[in-house]
Amino acid sequence: MPEIRKNLITGEYVIMAPERAKRPEDFLSPAKGQVLPAHSEGCPFCPGNEAKTPPETYRFPEGDNAAWKVRCIPNRFSALDPTGELWKKDDGLKTSMAGVGLHEVIIETTRHDLCLPQLAPEDVESVFKVYHHRFRSFYADPRVEHVILFKNHGASAGTSLEHPHSQIVGLPMAPVQVRHRAEDSMRFCSDEGCCLVCRTIEDEMTDAARVITETENFVAFIPYAALSPFHTWVMPKRHSGCFGETSGPEVLELAALMRTVLGKIHKGLDNPDFNYVIRSGSPSESGSSHLHWYMAIVPRVTKAAGFELGTGMYINPSIPERSAEFLRNVVV
Amino acid sequence: MPEIRKNLITGEYVIMAPERAKRPEDFLSPAKGQVLPAHSEGCPFCPGNEAKTPPETYRFPEGDNAAWKVRCIPNRFSALDPTGELWKKDDGLKTSMAGVGLHEVIIETTRHDLCLPQLAPEDVESVFKVYHHRFRSFYADPRVEHVILFKNHGASAGTSLEHPHSQIVGLPMAPVQVRHRAEDSMRFCSDEGCCLVCRTIEDEMTDAARVITETENFVAFIPYAALSPFHTWVMPKRHSGCFGETSGPEVLELAALMRTVLGKIHKGLDNPDFNYVIRSGSPSESGSSHLHWYMAIVPRVTKAAGFELGTGMYINPSIPERSAEFLRNVVV
Repeated sequence: MPEIRKNLITGEYVIMAPERAKRPEDFLSPAKGQVLPAHSEGCPFCPGNEAKTPPETYRFPEGDNAAWKVRCIPNRFSALDPTGELWKKDDGLKTSMAGVGLHEVIIETTRHDLCLPQLAPEDVESVFKVYHHRFRSFYADPRVEHVILFKNHGASAGTSLEHPHSQIVGLPMAPVQVRHRAEDSMRFCSDEGCCLVCRTIEDEMTDAARVITETENFVAFIPYAALSPFHTWVMPKRHSGCFGETSGPEVLELAALMRTVLGKIHKGLDNPDFNYVIRSGSPSESGSSHLHWYMAIVPRVTKAAGFELGTGMYINPSIPERSAEFLRNVVV
Repeated sequence: MPEIRKNLITGEYVIMAPERAKRPEDFLSPAKGQVLPAHSEGCPFCPGNEAKTPPETYRFPEGDNAAWKVRCIPNRFSALDPTGELWKKDDGLKTSMAGVGLHEVIIETTRHDLCLPQLAPEDVESVFKVYHHRFRSFYADPRVEHVILFKNHGASAGTSLEHPHSQIVGLPMAPVQVRHRAEDSMRFCSDEGCCLVCRTIEDEMTDAARVITETENFVAFIPYAALSPFHTWVMPKRHSGCFGETSGPEVLELAALMRTVLGKIHKGLDNPDFNYVIRSGSPSESGSSHLHWYMAIVPRVTKAAGFELGTGMYINPSIPERSAEFLRNVVV
């Protein structure tokens, strides 16, 4: 019989549908027809074409004359105005505010053709060092209330440019979804006297059935109520509300773990499209007893439709325990 | 400057991005390569192939010997078990319940090739009469707590079968999204002494800039904080918490209005993929002072990506007022 599981951290119910359940191998991506070149003349993100982008905001390694490994630029189609002043208006039912904030593209590598898990370990470390740097510096803007860092890989995950890149957005307010989840975790913390994410990590590590891999300070697993096949969470074992407060060595450890997990997904599912996102509080919330930052990876192997739109619920045609076992066994 | 608008009914913030704003014409769907036949031999939803589906649960007109116009069948890949008993389990962090409930397909027409706005007015009326009938009868199952009725049109809206059909799901619990919205509308009602949807309708009709069309008892408009281009709401002007309590004549009027609005979208945007959904309380909530049922139509002309996933927010590259004007001017 199908089972409905509740994801306590997101608050969402998920219908686990064994009638529809497929073997992990059934989610293999169709072969991509296209082989990308290592360098593309017309690509604004490739080295040599730096003048085709808006002036860069940061490069790694720092220092103007060095060749860059990772490069940050304002998004040319920024959703938000980086210079304006913040205003708020409440005109009857028309509640609005200025669309001010920051929106940057993080070019992850000089190579046009390599996705994150194909980069050398030290190159993935560079990407995560830059994530950490930009995340912290975005919060230094007094208009920024909430920062979201994400990656879209592949057309069905929403990418329009194929050169590997991530995006970071600094919003002038906290999204409602973030607020609802914070309320739920606060309620749990007040009822149970501990952080819901800390408790979930303990629980998953004891159970072990859904764990993909772990390091000293991080664990990657498929949640009990995963929203979709291979939906993966990467969580720091140490309680902390804010990604920005992660130590230097922890950032490198996270990079290594993400390289492994994304490598397993890339190899095991034949390079599926995916999104990942850092879900974190602000630096001022780093000491919160109920907030605990983490990363979510969502391979795009199924499609949301009217049901998801109308309910906010998901139908997951896979079994989290089997998906985790499948990824555990992929050797990278 | 971009503007962030808040949708009070969904609780969601939307970044209205004029930097990215396109003219309504820019959202035209790419031409579909394929012309569908009026009847398809292998299609389980076409007349003559009734034996290829599970036994039907309802047909319209009623009566076994008559030729059907609309036909309801259990979903062969049902997400829920229609016969099992409801159980709930709370094992530490693992909260689950039986995946029991109802899941049917509503075959809208005998014609393989015609989508809803291409049907004759009386055929669209038949579809909406069946929606109303199934909606009410789903709630007669004591295990059903919440009913969602939706349509996926086109591959990017999640359809796998091309023969025109809708789906209806009876869930054993109310989704969290539904609960959150009900809480918001209850709060508004208690603060302001009136229904948020009633107030929104008044406001939109007075403003008129976002109204697409209306009838005596219904109005179709693009919300002030539309989540995506041409995101449309169709609302009953008469306050009612439940679609199931809509009167017979009102159901026919709704059918006519939906045929017009979907016709404008079909013609104006060149047959885009879309979803629509009925958002409604249960019959026991029909007298609620804060719940007010409505329909939402979401043409799939943009793609959700990591940003939407990580925030629950949307970036809308269109201007609701211009989109509404565009649809108002499409003659059907």
